[in-house]
Amino acid sequence: MSTNTQDRIAIVNAQIVTVDKSASVIENGSLVIGGDGSIRAISSTSIANNASETIDANGAIVMPGLINAHTHLGMTLFRGLGDDMSLEDFLARLMPAEVRVLNYEAVHSGTELAALESLLGGITTSLDMYYLPDAALAVAKSSGMRLQTGPNFLESDGPEPLKFADRLKWATQWLEAPRDTIGTTGWVAPHSTYLLSEEQLRVLADLAARFEARIHVHASETVGEMQLVAKRHGGRTPIQVLDDTKLLRRAVLAHGVHLSDHDIELIAQNSATVVHCPASNFKLASGVARILDLQRAGVNVALGTDGPASGNDIDLWIAIRLAGYMQKTFAKNPAVLPAVELVRMATINGARALQLDHLIGSLEVGKRADIIILDADSPSLTPNFDPHTTIATCVTRADVRHVIVDGNVVVRDRKCLTIDHKTAVNKVKLLGKQVLASVNNN
Amino acid sequence: MSTNTQDRIAIVNAQIVTVDKSASVIENGSLVIGGDGSIRAISSTSIANNASETIDANGAIVMPGLINAHTHLGMTLFRGLGDDMSLEDFLARLMPAEVRVLNYEAVHSGTELAALESLLGGITTSLDMYYLPDAALAVAKSSGMRLQTGPNFLESDGPEPLKFADRLKWATQWLEAPRDTIGTTGWVAPHSTYLLSEEQLRVLADLAARFEARIHVHASETVGEMQLVAKRHGGRTPIQVLDDTKLLRRAVLAHGVHLSDHDIELIAQNSATVVHCPASNFKLASGVARILDLQRAGVNVALGTDGPASGNDIDLWIAIRLAGYMQKTFAKNPAVLPAVELVRMATINGARALQLDHLIGSLEVGKRADIIILDADSPSLTPNFDPHTTIATCVTRADVRHVIVDGNVVVRDRKCLTIDHKTAVNKVKLLGKQVLASVNNN
Repeated sequence: MSTNTQDRIAIVNAQIVTVDKSASVIENGSLVIGGDGSIRAISSTSIANNASETIDANGAIVMPGLINAHTHLGMTLFRGLGDDMSLEDFLARLMPAEVRVLNYEAVHSGTELAALESLLGGITTSLDMYYLPDAALAVAKSSGMRLQTGPNFLESDGPEPLKFADRLKWATQWLEAPRDTIGTTGWVAPHSTYLLSEEQLRVLADLAARFEARIHVHASETVGEMQLVAKRHGGRTPIQVLDDTKLLRRAVLAHGVHLSDHDIELIAQNSATVVHCPASNFKLASGVARILDLQRAGVNVALGTDGPASGNDIDLWIAIRLAGYMQKTFAKNPAVLPAVELVRMATINGARALQLDHLIGSLEVGKRADIIILDADSPSLTPNFDPHTTIATCVTRADVRHVIVDGNVVVRDRKCLTIDHKTAVNKVKLLGKQVLASVNNN
Repeated sequence: MSTNTQDRIAIVNAQIVTVDKSASVIENGSLVIGGDGSIRAISSTSIANNASETIDANGAIVMPGLINAHTHLGMTLFRGLGDDMSLEDFLARLMPAEVRVLNYEAVHSGTELAALESLLGGITTSLDMYYLPDAALAVAKSSGMRLQTGPNFLESDGPEPLKFADRLKWATQWLEAPRDTIGTTGWVAPHSTYLLSEEQLRVLADLAARFEARIHVHASETVGEMQLVAKRHGGRTPIQVLDDTKLLRRAVLAHGVHLSDHDIELIAQNSATVVHCPASNFKLASGVARILDLQRAGVNVALGTDGPASGNDIDLWIAIRLAGYMQKTFAKNPAVLPAVELVRMATINGARALQLDHLIGSLEVGKRADIIILDADSPSLTPNFDPHTTIATCVTRADVRHVIVDGNVVVRDRKCLTIDHKTAVNKVKLLGKQVLASVNNN
């Protein structure tokens, strides 16, 4: 070899699930992370390197970090606050608690716990939508988790008592601000078509166009939403409204449960992504997304956990399991949504949603090193006849051993190196008492 | 206090989820395990004791061990061998591999891995059905996991090349043999109504009656099974056949997916249990069991993982999640199968299925100490507004910290004390190569 810089990490004796175009698996593979945090080499034979550290995977699965393409991380604070009830009833319980409890510190604590949970569970990138996004951004910087977020647009007298015009100013500042990590700018986030007027939506489309920003929006989650939107927007569906207001182009649509054939056509034509959030949809009985029809239409489908007060956890392994099993059951066909496709949904399809697929989402030379190393000795992953199947049907967060983001080890032997675990948990336990008090005094 | 014997363990600072009749939760609770391995005392105040060991739960959830009411533990050997295909296609792939690979040693290894997986995941009792049950029984003894099993009845030229009459002799010997632990005798296990004739089924009913044994049988799992049974048994359903042959009384019916209203009536009248196996049913697209209708009819519904080649893991937390979310979604009602009920299905209802509810399945004074202590610092379980909700929507096997069976610590700080982890895993990795060769040479 001939490199003058020091390599950072060599991973050896790995079963590398690359998630490249042909879903290659490299047995007894090696992967070298260069000094710049990118993947310098991958091979089925040993790779000459001068890495400061060698990690022996002991034959375990090594795969791309998971990408959570729709979440509200700060909502860990309200996890389990309103269960066994509908989204509408849950929101009625949640919103007053949010108003009373949330401030920068609280959102920071909630997001920090979420980052801990995410990283320990192999989630290396999240597309977030929540109040006071500066707090989440600070957590991303200190924890090393990739995060995309920004101000979102909804009327709120709560933690961000800003009118639309002021939000617009704020969002503009966000879009203008230089960011020192990849993937932290460029989003415009209308909450939904039911909380905004057509005029407001058009203004946001202009804002996005001006900065070539992407759109992150809730769409077609529940029957209740469909009715609200039809009422507010002259009988149209959320997707039609987004299309009419020029917000659908390459948008990231959270949920996409209740879609007409025409909606699916519009989504496909606009190269938008649907982020399937099965734990939230099924727990709240919101419905079953038409994943197979979306895929047939060529739509990119990614996976999300939704907020941990809807989900209730931030666990993409569970999302994989739920997505696969539910679609098989509804289609009455065990062959649909095969394991390879489920793995893609949780990785490269998420990267595509975030327009970061040139950088993350698969293990290929030149990409950033966002990597999960699973447990070689997990009873649940033994035997391992096909690693894609193992991921789709057996892996849980118990099996995540090491996690690397951007070439840096952030989880080693199940311990997060970038967040003080005990402190992060205890802060939210304390805040939980405030949350409960705010609900009981309501 | 006034006890002359030494207490074994005092658990303090616990949130005790008792799963008693009123689903009591004891905050800041203590639980003392007496010298005989039973629960001597439970209280919300500290309990005087002379225990050799005190375990500080640090505020974590302490709950009954989970009961896996239908499984085939030895099938870890074939985990993931045939995925994204129907039960029938999978069995066609599996059965030749079973014939070539299984012997006492192989079943022992497969079951030992399963026991390791079960115990680490908080499963303290299993109702097993597999070849060469003596091997499984040996694992139960050495690992400390409660196991109920016995010879099962199906025509097989494979690992047990016994004709029906010889099986009958063998099963009779099993029923006659004294067992030194609770719950290891008393089962007659016809595989299913599609693999046995009416005459054979009647003979098994006589055998069960003679020993007051319980029945463990697959019933109404797939549409294919319903058709086979209708053809073999004159248009009847599996449940009707079991009723007509006197096998339905207090039977444990694995799956129970495709049930008519009349089937449900028969099951209720006979005080039989349905063991819901969601991971298997949904992965194989077998269908969605009528859990809500069964419960309305007063039927005891327990949870099972099914064999880890159908499931594909042995994880009742996943089963809880799948059972709840799928029923909510199918019923289009987020309030059905609430958390308390899901916790019961995984614990006391399983004990009832096994007629061991006087001994296990809840944390009450006098019962045997089968106990899980969860992780107090798990990010996914924080905050914890309602422990039943937390169990139903957040807990995975990553959160199981200590496990006690019959008053003995079998898992401490996530390490199994009774099974050599590395050896158990490696044995099955080696056997996996044989399995793969047997399929490829087929």
